Amino acid sequence: MNSIYFDHNATTALNSSVLERMLPWLQTQTGNPTSRHNDGRSARDAIEFARRQVAEACGAYSSQVIFTSCGTEANNLAIKGIATNRPNMQILTSAIEHPCVTQPALSMEALGSVSRQIDVDAYGKLDLVALKERLKIQTSLVSVMLANNETGVIQDIASVAELARANDAMTHTDAVQALGKISLNFSDLNVHAMTISSHKINGPQGAAALILDKRVDIQPLLHGGGQERGLRSGTENIAAIVGFGAACELAAANKENFAAHTLALREQLETGLAQLKVTIFGRNVARLTNTSFFAVDGIEGETLVMALDRRNFSVASGSACSSDNNNPSHVLLAMGVHADTARGAVRVSLGIKNTAAEVADFLAILRHEILRLKQLTAMAA
Amino acid sequence: MNSIYFDHNATTALNSSVLERMLPWLQTQTGNPTSRHNDGRSARDAIEFARRQVAEACGAYSSQVIFTSCGTEANNLAIKGIATNRPNMQILTSAIEHPCVTQPALSMEALGSVSRQIDVDAYGKLDLVALKERLKIQTSLVSVMLANNETGVIQDIASVAELARANDAMTHTDAVQALGKISLNFSDLNVHAMTISSHKINGPQGAAALILDKRVDIQPLLHGGGQERGLRSGTENIAAIVGFGAACELAAANKENFAAHTLALREQLETGLAQLKVTIFGRNVARLTNTSFFAVDGIEGETLVMALDRRNFSVASGSACSSDNNNPSHVLLAMGVHADTARGAVRVSLGIKNTAAEVADFLAILRHEILRLKQLTAMAA
Repeated sequence: MNSIYFDHNATTALNSSVLERMLPWLQTQTGNPTSRHNDGRSARDAIEFARRQVAEACGAYSSQVIFTSCGTEANNLAIKGIATNRPNMQILTSAIEHPCVTQPALSMEALGSVSRQIDVDAYGKLDLVALKERLKIQTSLVSVMLANNETGVIQDIASVAELARANDAMTHTDAVQALGKISLNFSDLNVHAMTISSHKINGPQGAAALILDKRVDIQPLLHGGGQERGLRSGTENIAAIVGFGAACELAAANKENFAAHTLALREQLETGLAQLKVTIFGRNVARLTNTSFFAVDGIEGETLVMALDRRNFSVASGSACSSDNNNPSHVLLAMGVHADTARGAVRVSLGIKNTAAEVADFLAILRHEILRLKQLTAMAA
Repeated sequence: MNSIYFDHNATTALNSSVLERMLPWLQTQTGNPTSRHNDGRSARDAIEFARRQVAEACGAYSSQVIFTSCGTEANNLAIKGIATNRPNMQILTSAIEHPCVTQPALSMEALGSVSRQIDVDAYGKLDLVALKERLKIQTSLVSVMLANNETGVIQDIASVAELARANDAMTHTDAVQALGKISLNFSDLNVHAMTISSHKINGPQGAAALILDKRVDIQPLLHGGGQERGLRSGTENIAAIVGFGAACELAAANKENFAAHTLALREQLETGLAQLKVTIFGRNVARLTNTSFFAVDGIEGETLVMALDRRNFSVASGSACSSDNNNPSHVLLAMGVHADTARGAVRVSLGIKNTAAEVADFLAILRHEILRLKQLTAMAA
């Protein structure tokens, strides 16, 4: 596995210093955090330490952190948990949400909620006028992601929350792609709930959190022993939570570095892409510095991803979670991109360890593969 | 953390060879298993290898294994997932289930189900006559644990399933405490769904599975990217799943060893306990070889657990998940044990690394602490 990895929005490598912090919880007997002996208390203390690290990284209080097993679980908890206690209302999401927001919202229709999507413009920015209009109907919850996983485009969530509050609706934001890449402050966003995840910030898989305003009455998804103030039962994944805390601390400390480093690489990349006649999506609005989502005219994104894979570059054709089907990106379709263009989409998402040499190599190989694929297409025609 | 650890039913240490198998997935860049590049395919292959290991350890097919983040999640998925698709019926559980079975069943009452509990006898064995009687009312699901976490008492689940099937009800069994300790075969039990968990068998926290008959129509708890055949969305915890697979293979291979080793230690323990005038619960029926649940007359279990903790022994006063309250064990109350006696309960749950010397030390210290605490009580009286 010595690929050049350009797929950091899908998942990231575990930071070695984070693994170092986790190892004691993997190598020796660890008590169940609920147990009343010293082994249990040590585990409990480690979890509470991590809770403070997570809270500090995103401008929240420790008491607002509910640990879950993954971002999908946190999104499901927010949406189903709030909509269950505010039944028979409308749930609003954006047209560019990850399926782990869209699908839970749709699933609540069986219990009497109605799920509606708010459009985005050609740059992928939420239509706030449309949101305001939709909010005239009684709404339990508005869920809009902070930064899009495919385009990296950043939404004005504070404005979303303000509109929602003015109409007695709650706001949730999926901030999984934002953590560690831009400043993130739960209080400033003024939302009721926010999802963050460990494995997107060089932390381990198996830990994530819903940051929740304690005044929000929420129904748990997992009932049982009463862990996480009764909101997420189940034995805590101690090593993963410890790693999540450590990764949050690192991500918060290094986010300026991360942004500067990946922005320089992306500028190098997109300067090169400009010579290859590609379309870069969301280019003219605020987006994550590490993300470049582009399409080569006349070449399927899937084909290019596989061709680049054979040349040892790991890139994506869109969201990792929708890679198992060949439909064009719903994000691009929502932005009004033609399906043919959308099918050509390729995502490069950079990480702190990527280098200028890797980007230069990538551009050379991409140029070569595009030529080769176009020749193949021409021969077949 | 150099305690003598006698709390293996709460959680176990990660086996070092299992950690060895996990480390490559923690030390290097790992792809998202849904991604279509080589990093993603490697992760996908590792998960499918683990799925086969898990299936083989419990007499199931790979296609029946749904990975979840913990046993609580698997139990919630089984109960809510089945009862959602078979609404407005009765859900039957036993009176001695873990809260992560009882609470999900109760939570379904808000959606029209009715939750009822079947009694157990003085030995903690399910009253099959009462079950048969209750099944006369239309029942969606019967959920009865295979081995009790507190007493270790083993139920005749095949008979439960037979009665349930005769009445068009499905059967789920929480086999979390059984895996690795007794023979476990999903097909032989003839149930529709079965929960097993990694961290009880020297695997990592963060992985568990619901073994599910594919003909059962189940509603997912977590909606999103469609992982696990759409039944459990969310990025897979690769390292934990790899570890769970390895731990299953070890547990299946070593279960006779485990049983023989812990039975010898428990006989040594209970021979010693007999001289201390204690009550041993479930002693005369089939129970897990590693579990001894007993009460010392006139001494609170909580007090004894804390006294033993100060002497460096980690034991429990009951389920880890109910250790945050002082109510007497619901398992013992269901067995008709008087609340005063139940409050005295202490659980020793042995592991493969415990030794005869540790048990001998424990007996000596237990004798000493009982004497000391009785003297304190006498002085206070």
